[in-house]
Amino acid sequence: MEFQDYFPIWNKLNINQQNKMLRALHSQKIKKGTVIHNGSMECTGLLLVKSGQMRAYILSDEGREITIYRLFDRDMCLFSAYCMMRSIQFEVIIEAEKDTELWVIQSETYKSIMEESADLANYTNELMATRFSDVMWLIEQIMWKSLDKRVAEFLLEEAVIDESKELKITHETIANHLGSHREVITRMLNYFQSERMVKLSRGTVTILDEEKLRNL
Amino acid sequence: MEFQDYFPIWNKLNINQQNKMLRALHSQKIKKGTVIHNGSMECTGLLLVKSGQMRAYILSDEGREITIYRLFDRDMCLFSAYCMMRSIQFEVIIEAEKDTELWVIQSETYKSIMEESADLANYTNELMATRFSDVMWLIEQIMWKSLDKRVAEFLLEEAVIDESKELKITHETIANHLGSHREVITRMLNYFQSERMVKLSRGTVTILDEEKLRNL
Repeated sequence: MEFQDYFPIWNKLNINQQNKMLRALHSQKIKKGTVIHNGSMECTGLLLVKSGQMRAYILSDEGREITIYRLFDRDMCLFSAYCMMRSIQFEVIIEAEKDTELWVIQSETYKSIMEESADLANYTNELMATRFSDVMWLIEQIMWKSLDKRVAEFLLEEAVIDESKELKITHETIANHLGSHREVITRMLNYFQSERMVKLSRGTVTILDEEKLRNL
Repeated sequence: MEFQDYFPIWNKLNINQQNKMLRALHSQKIKKGTVIHNGSMECTGLLLVKSGQMRAYILSDEGREITIYRLFDRDMCLFSAYCMMRSIQFEVIIEAEKDTELWVIQSETYKSIMEESADLANYTNELMATRFSDVMWLIEQIMWKSLDKRVAEFLLEEAVIDESKELKITHETIANHLGSHREVITRMLNYFQSERMVKLSRGTVTILDEEKLRNL
C-alpha cells in the first residue's frame, strides 16, 4: 500500500500536483513515546498515519496536559503544519502512543497545491471541521461532564437488567434513552473504549471495566 | 458600503461566482438580544456582520452557557451554516449582543462556489483556523486559569470593546460568558470590590484599578 492509497482525494489531483506531492513527502517510522512535533519547534509538516496511534495534546505552563484529539490509521494531522495557515495560532504537541508509521508532507508544498486545487482546499476544510468538532466535544466534557456519568450509569443499569456485560444495544437507543443525539453517544462510547472501559462492536457494547465506569 | 466592500476576497471570484453570491444573500437588521441561529434549528446560512456585535455560545443540558467567540464588524460566521460541511458536528447559538446589521448567505450556494474556487475554500479555511484558535484559547482558559484571572480578563476585554470603564453588565451575563454560576461571579466581584479593583452598582461594574486587574 502506497501513499496514493492512503490519501483520500489523490485522484482529484492532476498529474502535476500528484508529482509535486510525491516529491514533498517522506515516510518515517517512530517508536512509541516519540514526540514528532512540538509546538515551539519548527513547522514539521502534515502527518498522515499509515499505521499506529498518535495523540495531539496541549501543555500548560505548569506542565499539565490535555489530549485534544487522537490519530489512528489513515488520519491526517494539520496542526503540525501550522505555518501553512497564518490563522493557526496555537501550539500542539504530537506524540506516538504506539509504534507508528507515517508520511510527513512538507507544509509549503501542500499549501501551494491547496492554493490551486479547490478539491484539496475543501478536503482540508473538512479535516479541520472534524478536529473542531472533537475540540468542541472536549469543551462540553470539561464544562458539563454530566453526560459521561449518565452514559456510564445507563450501561451499568442495562448490565444488571440483562444479567450480562455484553449489551445488545445501538447508540441510537442509548441516545433516545438519555435524550441525547446518536453522534454524541458514539463519541462518548469511543472515548470509553479508548479508556478501555468498554469494547464496541456492531450492535454490541461490552463492559470491560465495571469499576472504572462506576467511578465516573 | 455594499456587500462587495465587506467580503474580503470578492475580487478573487469570477463574475459568475460574484453574481451567484449576490443572488444568494439578503441583508437583515436584528435587535439586541435576538437569537439568529439556534443549533437545533435549520441551517441559517453564513453570517457577515456589517455593524453591531454578536456572540456564539453553546448550552449545556442544564441551561448553562459558555461564549465560544464573538463577531464584530466585518466578521463572518461559518458555524451557522453547519450543513455546508458534514464534519461540523456541534451546535452553536448565535445571538445579537447589540443591534446588528448583517448579510445572510445561503449555505448551499456558498458551498457550490467553494467547490470550484480554491480562493474561497482557502479563505474559509483561514476563517475556521481563526475560530479554532479562539476555541483552543478558551480551553486553555478553562483548564489552566483560575476564575479570578478569567473574570479580570473578561472585564478588561469588555472595557476595550465598549470603550468605557463603566460596564453595563449583570453578574448573570458574566457567568454565562464564562460558563460559571451567578453566585460564584458575584462573590468574585465582591472580592474585586473589596480590593478596590472595581466598584459595583445595580447593573454596572466600574473598573477602578485597571493595573491591578491586569496584574492578576
